[in-house]
Amino acid sequence: MAIAVPSGFRLAGVHCGIKSNPAKLDLTLIVSDAPAVAAGVYTQNKVFAAPVGWNRRHTPSRAIRAIVVNSGNANACTGPRGDEDAATMAKLAAAAVGAAPAEALVLSTGVIGKFLPMDKIAAGITAAAGQLGRDEAHLLDAARGMLTTDTRHKLAGRRLKLTAREVQLTGMAKGAAMIGPNMATMLSVLLTDAVLDEQTAQHALAQAVDDSFNCISVDGHMSTNDTVLLVASGVAGGGALAADDLAAFRAALGEVCAELAQAIPADGEGATHLVTIDVAGAASRAAAHKIARTVAESPLVKTAIAGADPNWGRVVSAVGYSGVPLDAAAISLKINGHLLYQRGAPVAFDAATVSASIRDQRDTHLEIQLADGDGRVRFWTTDLTAEYVRLNADYHT
Amino acid sequence: MAIAVPSGFRLAGVHCGIKSNPAKLDLTLIVSDAPAVAAGVYTQNKVFAAPVGWNRRHTPSRAIRAIVVNSGNANACTGPRGDEDAATMAKLAAAAVGAAPAEALVLSTGVIGKFLPMDKIAAGITAAAGQLGRDEAHLLDAARGMLTTDTRHKLAGRRLKLTAREVQLTGMAKGAAMIGPNMATMLSVLLTDAVLDEQTAQHALAQAVDDSFNCISVDGHMSTNDTVLLVASGVAGGGALAADDLAAFRAALGEVCAELAQAIPADGEGATHLVTIDVAGAASRAAAHKIARTVAESPLVKTAIAGADPNWGRVVSAVGYSGVPLDAAAISLKINGHLLYQRGAPVAFDAATVSASIRDQRDTHLEIQLADGDGRVRFWTTDLTAEYVRLNADYHT
Repeated sequence: MAIAVPSGFRLAGVHCGIKSNPAKLDLTLIVSDAPAVAAGVYTQNKVFAAPVGWNRRHTPSRAIRAIVVNSGNANACTGPRGDEDAATMAKLAAAAVGAAPAEALVLSTGVIGKFLPMDKIAAGITAAAGQLGRDEAHLLDAARGMLTTDTRHKLAGRRLKLTAREVQLTGMAKGAAMIGPNMATMLSVLLTDAVLDEQTAQHALAQAVDDSFNCISVDGHMSTNDTVLLVASGVAGGGALAADDLAAFRAALGEVCAELAQAIPADGEGATHLVTIDVAGAASRAAAHKIARTVAESPLVKTAIAGADPNWGRVVSAVGYSGVPLDAAAISLKINGHLLYQRGAPVAFDAATVSASIRDQRDTHLEIQLADGDGRVRFWTTDLTAEYVRLNADYHT
Repeated sequence: MAIAVPSGFRLAGVHCGIKSNPAKLDLTLIVSDAPAVAAGVYTQNKVFAAPVGWNRRHTPSRAIRAIVVNSGNANACTGPRGDEDAATMAKLAAAAVGAAPAEALVLSTGVIGKFLPMDKIAAGITAAAGQLGRDEAHLLDAARGMLTTDTRHKLAGRRLKLTAREVQLTGMAKGAAMIGPNMATMLSVLLTDAVLDEQTAQHALAQAVDDSFNCISVDGHMSTNDTVLLVASGVAGGGALAADDLAAFRAALGEVCAELAQAIPADGEGATHLVTIDVAGAASRAAAHKIARTVAESPLVKTAIAGADPNWGRVVSAVGYSGVPLDAAAISLKINGHLLYQRGAPVAFDAATVSASIRDQRDTHLEIQLADGDGRVRFWTTDLTAEYVRLNADYHT
């Protein structure tokens, strides 16, 4: 099975009362039977949550025993008390497996600016520690414990046959981007039983994140809590991966991250379209990324897609203001395979056909072709609907 | 009267048929009785409209006789034929006053990607040339001829008593930002009878625009056509302005530009709030501007204001992801004068009172205080409502 718990890990997800609805899980505990290698990639926001600060100080590591995640409260903008609470969470999670605080990592997501209910967190960790397991039900509970306004859990995995051994890679993620009222954050934890050292894990994770979680945007509002962890138990054995095996592992890691990343805008609240933006022919990959992100975050592009309007002028003008030097006379654009704009000039097309192709399917594909180099990127976003505005304009504070 | 036609100019606004509604004016002609000094500031979009290209080549100038503006068609993304059409518009407007094509400037706003109806433009220029005048009715018609989805015309002016002479400065603008379906663009023409040379005019205009039109955002989507012109007839006489007089003129120019700039988000379609963002204590003015713009363009901040939600976490986290190095532990925030966040920590406040202060008035004031330096900026934006989405998701192409 592609999605299974990698050897050496046990998981649990419980309801401990941070969320008022008792049917919603709000705490996940993941433990490694022995010290595991862990790498992390975090939000670039200068205003970052307490658990992000904790994890930054403790990754990469080769001695991680526990990861605790709570949903419903982000422990962000909470000052020194927030830092103490994150440290206490780490200490409690570590204690549950007889480890030291520095051997635990902490993830939080939910409301900004409220202190964590530490009594509930402590009870939740104790309860979760009593329910740890290695089967699919435990994996599902763990994936559910990190959700906020997500409408579904997000899991992806690969079983890899490497030279003389098999390894399992399984990832879970949460995020409807920053869409939930007061909610924020994209979190992901990737588990593997492959043998990886810290530097290899950190490098592989950073690259996989660059092409996946860093290529999604719902509303461009960067969270205070974004975290992606890769944790490797090494239980699959066989020593360090040879070059070919490592390449295969990195490819699988890239695929799993892309699958999980794409699931976030696909679950964007209020969204009626998942938009895939391919930029090719840019001066560099960074230029392609900047162009794609500018298009992805234009409210005029997003509302046009919501309205099934093949409004190429909005896309082309967004390319133009991305801040990247480019040859505007060479821009071409396809929407859902239909050529609408070719080398800087409009192309006659049947608007009704292209509109129907947007309206009648959930996926929309924008292909932007430039002639500035060989930089390319694939980026995912949502459309922008009146429902998004309604969900986020409600009074909550 | 603060708003009057400066000496040396005549204006007209007519309906020539670019817009289908005959009650809507769609062509403005402004002529200077003698060659005037003209300075221009234009969109930074790499995909810029044909008239922007024409004006860039012909400003600054000391020989401008005519300015022609059409609304309803942006002449953007129209390739070489668009360039020819812009040149023809200049030629026709110049010919109406017996001048050469290079003595005319051209502004267009409206639909992207359609060729101008040149027969209508030609007839419109002829009609407008027959109706030129210097009184308030002519000024109003000229201001109306440049509107697209604006709900009202935008005029501002100052009468300045300088040493030994009086000068008049009057500006008109259009723009509901990029909000109209397929429409775009902010245009402004500032007329004065003061004596200015090209370099002085260009420098004064660039600085005034930096603190006004460059400090507004409705949806962050930069137009292909943005243009601000300052045209000085010199008819007030008295030779070049002395240092004190020039300073007074520049101050007035700054005020008029700020007044017109602010009128654009105030008229943003679908908007229910005009939001003024003051950033102080940033490392530099550029840093303050980047922070203000990031906050202004966060859909989560904008929807919170639409919903009268004093959601300070969204504002503070937007400050954090602006990309500017800053001391996050020193951030303070007031909304409508209420302190909600002080030096990196939440402050207890009465949410109902702050919410009412947002809900019950059209103006919302965000004050962001940092401790990184003395950079400051004032920035204006709108909230984001479901009505904005509806207006822009309609099928139009």
